[in-house]
Amino acid sequence: MSGVNLKKLSQELGLSISSVSKALRDSYEISVETKKRVKAMAEKLNYQPNPFARGLRKRNSITIAVVIPEIANNYFALAIDGIQLVAQQKGYHVLTYLTHEDAQNQESTVKHLQGGRVDGVLISLCGDTAKENHLTALHETGVPVVFFDRIPEAMGCPTVTTDDYESGFKATEHLIRAGCKRIAYLCVSGYLSTTNNRMNGYLAALKKYKINADPKMIIECSNDDAANLEVIKRRLKMKGRPDGILSSVEKLAITTYYVCNEIQLKIPQQLKIISFSCLRTASLLSPSLSTITPPAFEIGKESASLLFRMIEKKNFGNRIDQIVLKSTLIERNSSR
Amino acid sequence: MSGVNLKKLSQELGLSISSVSKALRDSYEISVETKKRVKAMAEKLNYQPNPFARGLRKRNSITIAVVIPEIANNYFALAIDGIQLVAQQKGYHVLTYLTHEDAQNQESTVKHLQGGRVDGVLISLCGDTAKENHLTALHETGVPVVFFDRIPEAMGCPTVTTDDYESGFKATEHLIRAGCKRIAYLCVSGYLSTTNNRMNGYLAALKKYKINADPKMIIECSNDDAANLEVIKRRLKMKGRPDGILSSVEKLAITTYYVCNEIQLKIPQQLKIISFSCLRTASLLSPSLSTITPPAFEIGKESASLLFRMIEKKNFGNRIDQIVLKSTLIERNSSR
Repeated sequence: MSGVNLKKLSQELGLSISSVSKALRDSYEISVETKKRVKAMAEKLNYQPNPFARGLRKRNSITIAVVIPEIANNYFALAIDGIQLVAQQKGYHVLTYLTHEDAQNQESTVKHLQGGRVDGVLISLCGDTAKENHLTALHETGVPVVFFDRIPEAMGCPTVTTDDYESGFKATEHLIRAGCKRIAYLCVSGYLSTTNNRMNGYLAALKKYKINADPKMIIECSNDDAANLEVIKRRLKMKGRPDGILSSVEKLAITTYYVCNEIQLKIPQQLKIISFSCLRTASLLSPSLSTITPPAFEIGKESASLLFRMIEKKNFGNRIDQIVLKSTLIERNSSR
Repeated sequence: MSGVNLKKLSQELGLSISSVSKALRDSYEISVETKKRVKAMAEKLNYQPNPFARGLRKRNSITIAVVIPEIANNYFALAIDGIQLVAQQKGYHVLTYLTHEDAQNQESTVKHLQGGRVDGVLISLCGDTAKENHLTALHETGVPVVFFDRIPEAMGCPTVTTDDYESGFKATEHLIRAGCKRIAYLCVSGYLSTTNNRMNGYLAALKKYKINADPKMIIECSNDDAANLEVIKRRLKMKGRPDGILSSVEKLAITTYYVCNEIQLKIPQQLKIISFSCLRTASLLSPSLSTITPPAFEIGKESASLLFRMIEKKNFGNRIDQIVLKSTLIERNSSR
């Protein structure tokens, strides 16, 4: 811990610890002259208040927590960027926790956050959040919580999401209009609100255009890149293989590109692809990748702003904000 | 803050607060029976210790800070991933601060961290860290500090870096052997150890192959993507334009791709490119991008491990670790 504490400061000044403390907090009990002297010395010795003493006294931590599945992911990196922008403006510290799509990990992190370490929590759920007890327990401690992107099924919490259903619908419609008849949906296994809503949009579009939904066309992948490559390769080599792919996850679209290179399947002539993605190089890929781009930075910003309104108790009564920001479909060569 | 504190717990149990506190800390003063009862009730009510009371008592925060220029950047996202892995194993919390390449921002963050909020700090400097007073001050408070990737010029601190000079040399040599005669070096302006070391490697390679270094071939960019595009475009259109580019920064290589598309300059026929980069889609770009890939995840892991050795006082005497991890040159179509 820091070398200069209240005790040292008071020794240097020849004042009591409590006088120094009061002077630093601008108490009316201390003269203007003394306050000046104390503050000058604090500046000179580079005194920084002990955050733990401050936390105990004020009953807050000026810290928020962000719990996300992963960071080496363009979507979450951009979202964090937006969150940090707002937190910095508010003078708050940001603790980041990665669950790596591990439900156990998420549970222990959330449990820990009940202890008062933070004033608010932003969460994007990991895949397969089967039990929601820990989320309910956190909610019940009264600490403000905002879920973003991947949200619980039915908790009545504030959320910030994108229009997953509509985007899934539009992307599928886009592939159908480009001539695709056998459209596969690529996703990660386990329940996720995003995956589910996008798939429902995909199924609704198939129905609208009278294309039978085929369970074999729902391709569930895992967190294991090598295994995913094999799964996708097998599907793209089988009889009646897909002629179009809607990928719910950026990295699965990338894996599909690798598979197509390997088995010499031509994009877009033999397979059209569109993916949910925040990839900055989408337009430079060979061929350029059509994307549904969620406004990740704005989602982070909105989530943090909403959380601070709750922390500062600017949200009245029983109001629950559920904010939906639109994604953008960008057509490029992979689906032409 | 949490609903269940020591007071509530003691009321439920009919014990004094101090007995409950001692029981939870496994004090010999409390009987085995009572300890069992207390722990069962703490579990049942989901009691979490107050981190601020704990911090004051133990004089530590079980928290480290990571100060980096940006997060929406493949290198730093991977480094954070490595840092988080080690922190999680140690049961530590991670505060993340983004300086956005702003020296003022970095200074106020570092100053704040002197207050004992964290047990250790990992820093990768922002561009143009002209004054190092705040870094020296942090160092002098005794809080363990490890610099990674972008390090101060001469502070004698523990560091984890990659072999920037050798990599700059090899990348330049690679372009020369591919037939380039007018090789430009793309970097961001302002002093950065990485930029500087890579440039020295570049200059040494030119010298070895008896190519005159031309100041016009050092292209300094900023944080403004639109302005960078114009700067690079102007240089690639001028008489005696470069026929090879070594980019110190991933995003400047991406910008160069956009410029080449716009002014129809063919890569690699008219311009060869190699870039320092952790881009996962490098091999899928059109054409695939040759890279010098720093081991970002490992750099994060090593930095955090070194920091924890210092926090746990496992580093003896006046030892200063300066760890260098090798980057990998991967030749692809952009420089063939």
